Amino acid sequence: MSEKLNELKEKLGEVSDLGSAAALLGWDQQVNMPSGGAEARGRHMATLGKVIQEKFTSDEVGRLLEDTKQELSGADADSDDAAMVRVAARNYDKAKRVPTEFVVEQAIVSAKAFEAWIEARSKSDFSIFRPHLEKVVELVHQYVSFFPPADHPYDILLDDYEPGMKTSDVKAIFEPLRTKQVKLIKAISSRKQVKDDFLHKNYNEKKLWDFGVDIVTKYGYDWTRGRQDKAPHPFEQSMSVNDVRITTRYEKDNPIALIFSSMHEAGHAMYEQGINPAYERTSLANGTSLAVHESQSRMWENLVGRSLPFWEHFFPKFKKTFPSQLDGVSLKSFYKAINKVEPSLIRVNADEATYNLHVMLRLELEIAMVEGSVAIKDLPELWNTKMQEYLGIIPPNDSMGVLQDVHWSGGAIGYFSTYALGNLVSAQLWEKINKDVKNLDDQICRGDFSQLLGWLRTNIHQHGHKYDPQVLVEKVTGSRITSEPYVRYLTKKYSEIYGL
Amino acid sequence: MSEKLNELKEKLGEVSDLGSAAALLGWDQQVNMPSGGAEARGRHMATLGKVIQEKFTSDEVGRLLEDTKQELSGADADSDDAAMVRVAARNYDKAKRVPTEFVVEQAIVSAKAFEAWIEARSKSDFSIFRPHLEKVVELVHQYVSFFPPADHPYDILLDDYEPGMKTSDVKAIFEPLRTKQVKLIKAISSRKQVKDDFLHKNYNEKKLWDFGVDIVTKYGYDWTRGRQDKAPHPFEQSMSVNDVRITTRYEKDNPIALIFSSMHEAGHAMYEQGINPAYERTSLANGTSLAVHESQSRMWENLVGRSLPFWEHFFPKFKKTFPSQLDGVSLKSFYKAINKVEPSLIRVNADEATYNLHVMLRLELEIAMVEGSVAIKDLPELWNTKMQEYLGIIPPNDSMGVLQDVHWSGGAIGYFSTYALGNLVSAQLWEKINKDVKNLDDQICRGDFSQLLGWLRTNIHQHGHKYDPQVLVEKVTGSRITSEPYVRYLTKKYSEIYGL
Repeated sequence: MSEKLNELKEKLGEVSDLGSAAALLGWDQQVNMPSGGAEARGRHMATLGKVIQEKFTSDEVGRLLEDTKQELSGADADSDDAAMVRVAARNYDKAKRVPTEFVVEQAIVSAKAFEAWIEARSKSDFSIFRPHLEKVVELVHQYVSFFPPADHPYDILLDDYEPGMKTSDVKAIFEPLRTKQVKLIKAISSRKQVKDDFLHKNYNEKKLWDFGVDIVTKYGYDWTRGRQDKAPHPFEQSMSVNDVRITTRYEKDNPIALIFSSMHEAGHAMYEQGINPAYERTSLANGTSLAVHESQSRMWENLVGRSLPFWEHFFPKFKKTFPSQLDGVSLKSFYKAINKVEPSLIRVNADEATYNLHVMLRLELEIAMVEGSVAIKDLPELWNTKMQEYLGIIPPNDSMGVLQDVHWSGGAIGYFSTYALGNLVSAQLWEKINKDVKNLDDQICRGDFSQLLGWLRTNIHQHGHKYDPQVLVEKVTGSRITSEPYVRYLTKKYSEIYGL
Repeated sequence: MSEKLNELKEKLGEVSDLGSAAALLGWDQQVNMPSGGAEARGRHMATLGKVIQEKFTSDEVGRLLEDTKQELSGADADSDDAAMVRVAARNYDKAKRVPTEFVVEQAIVSAKAFEAWIEARSKSDFSIFRPHLEKVVELVHQYVSFFPPADHPYDILLDDYEPGMKTSDVKAIFEPLRTKQVKLIKAISSRKQVKDDFLHKNYNEKKLWDFGVDIVTKYGYDWTRGRQDKAPHPFEQSMSVNDVRITTRYEKDNPIALIFSSMHEAGHAMYEQGINPAYERTSLANGTSLAVHESQSRMWENLVGRSLPFWEHFFPKFKKTFPSQLDGVSLKSFYKAINKVEPSLIRVNADEATYNLHVMLRLELEIAMVEGSVAIKDLPELWNTKMQEYLGIIPPNDSMGVLQDVHWSGGAIGYFSTYALGNLVSAQLWEKINKDVKNLDDQICRGDFSQLLGWLRTNIHQHGHKYDPQVLVEKVTGSRITSEPYVRYLTKKYSEIYGL
């Protein structure tokens, strides 16, 4: 390895170390920090962020990137070093385009917008949030202006989360999907609804927690390189490939969501735990995109965790753990209940059949905001119109409508689509896995997930950020991201459950 | 405030922010980190430490310190700004004298010495640790050489923990103290030993934990700005004056130590929580020295927590919590048991009467090492000789002797004396408090600690690092650090308990 490459790796390694420190500060803020610590923590994170930005965008890093790119231009483009430099150079170019003052202004505007959103949601009064959202969108326009013109301004935003993906790609994927999902939901709604009252009884939190731990341990989540804590909103956080933590929560009115959150976050975490350890401290040491990340979490939560084979294995023990709650409930009834389809107002609680429609709705509004084709003041009404159109229900107030998600308050515009893309990728991978791994259902029935995890390790996890998402998906499945496997998956699953 | 002063505060504020981040990394390492994360965490801390060192010792900070010192030279020397600049300049001067390569080498040597110490202790084989300790002491000599000659080379080391304190000061304080403590212990050993078998029964951890929480809550530890966790070794860690955390532990063979550790660490924490919030992000936002810090922890643990009035309040509830363990045990017997004096091998478990002797022994060995008047290979024997002389017992092996403490392996030579000095200061303050606060015993009997905490807040806590320890102690008590109040305290307490 050349001296310059070594030097570059050391510089970027330090940036990565500081990023890991920042990650821990964020994790602690959600999990442990006493309320009094919030203000100081904000400052600590701002200072650390500034140092990271300074170190990463230094002229020295720029020169080393240029030099190593040249050095590697003749080398194997598929080598780890080439990928590392390519990804780092792309991130560097983006970071350089955005002035530090802008980053600071955006942080301030977001902080205020977040406060306003909290109040607006609690009072269900969009007018409180509106001026802040206008400012947020103004900054988004400014952000876009730092980059060379793209086919669509939304491309710039999307690219930060889904490298290489275009707005037109997403639209082309979602257009046919929406029609099919709406049709599926209509078909389901004409059938007899499944019973799920037994899921909403009183379930002991500690017992659910232990059951979730048991499941993700069987999945292959490595506790010597992770831990699980409680947090208001479940999330996964990686401090290094050897320290990847998950969180979950107990909701009184939806208790068993606790174990599905554990499965979901463990899906994210096993991805990070499976990255080639040689990538540690480089630009390759994370999942390649939000969509591919979400494909992992949704696979372990839904394709595995809400499948019949899975519960064939776990239901007897689950019933033993909660005998009174599940008295007289058969495996089949339980399976149907955890897969109940019901158009609902809140995305995070939506079932597999309706979830993507929530996402598409937001994507359409985001694109309209970025294009300037909708005035911010008209968002609540547009939201409700689309809810009626896609899901057949209208929110009784804006708290349960346009104000329900935190994302826009934080200036995070551009990544909603990755939630739905993740579902699609999960099904795409699933079809391929079931070709490669014989009798996967039988293995799952036995509580054996080792071949499944092994396949994911080999085909997805180890590569980290080496391949762009579309490249990786095509490399593994033979096709770029497409909705067909997911539609096949949904149709088959719900045809059986609802007798379509 | 001048522009330069503002600029300096902002620069030092950033250094402080990064220091807080480093503090959290350290806290997490002890409390939460999965074992797999250790290697990466070491790197994160090293990089963060390097950035802090770079930022703090930058030429810009040096210039700003010079300029502001000049600006403030005519101003009130007792002003917060003057103190802030004075302390920062002193720290800057020290940091500048120590080359970064030395810091790195010391970190590497310490890491290896620590590993060797672990092995040596487990095998009770000093020869494994010896070459590493020799290297550590060599680096200590090198460290001393970076500074202008002092009266005694050990002064340089001591000054890092106890600013302004000289080796000769400590010797002058300890010399008469040792004689008196040895005499006291001999007197006690001729009396009938107190019974404490009931302290070593099986106590439920959760109940002890809750009891400790109850106590420190009554003390005034602010949970909205702190939290308590389990850790292998109890410690306190401050991330800001509004985020000061404590830890404790459960030891099977000494279960009730859990609540005394909570009291001890809460004593440290209340000091940090009580610092003037205007000092946040400045060089004044910490306790002024290890000895003054220890005076707070030992006061709440011992002068309060092992006093008769304290247990007059808490014993009835404690007995109700552990009825079978304390069946037939009177308040008086319990009080005597928790104050049992018994020369023992291990410092951390030593009682109040013998503790200081453990410390003096180490101090004498440290001074000898720094002077070069003892060869490292002779340490084990010297240790045992002194144990015999001061405490009348000889360790059966080096694990329980010279290898018992972690400090030297980490290169931390120079701060053992602060443990004993803290005891002395605690008694000095206690005499003054009891002059200023009428009927303090009665208040403690009622479980009311508000006036005590109020006094400490006003006289000690709020000042943070503004006054050097000796200055502060003299300002508050009228005298510099002295052993007399502590000897009076011990003599009175044990005369009553052992009927001397």
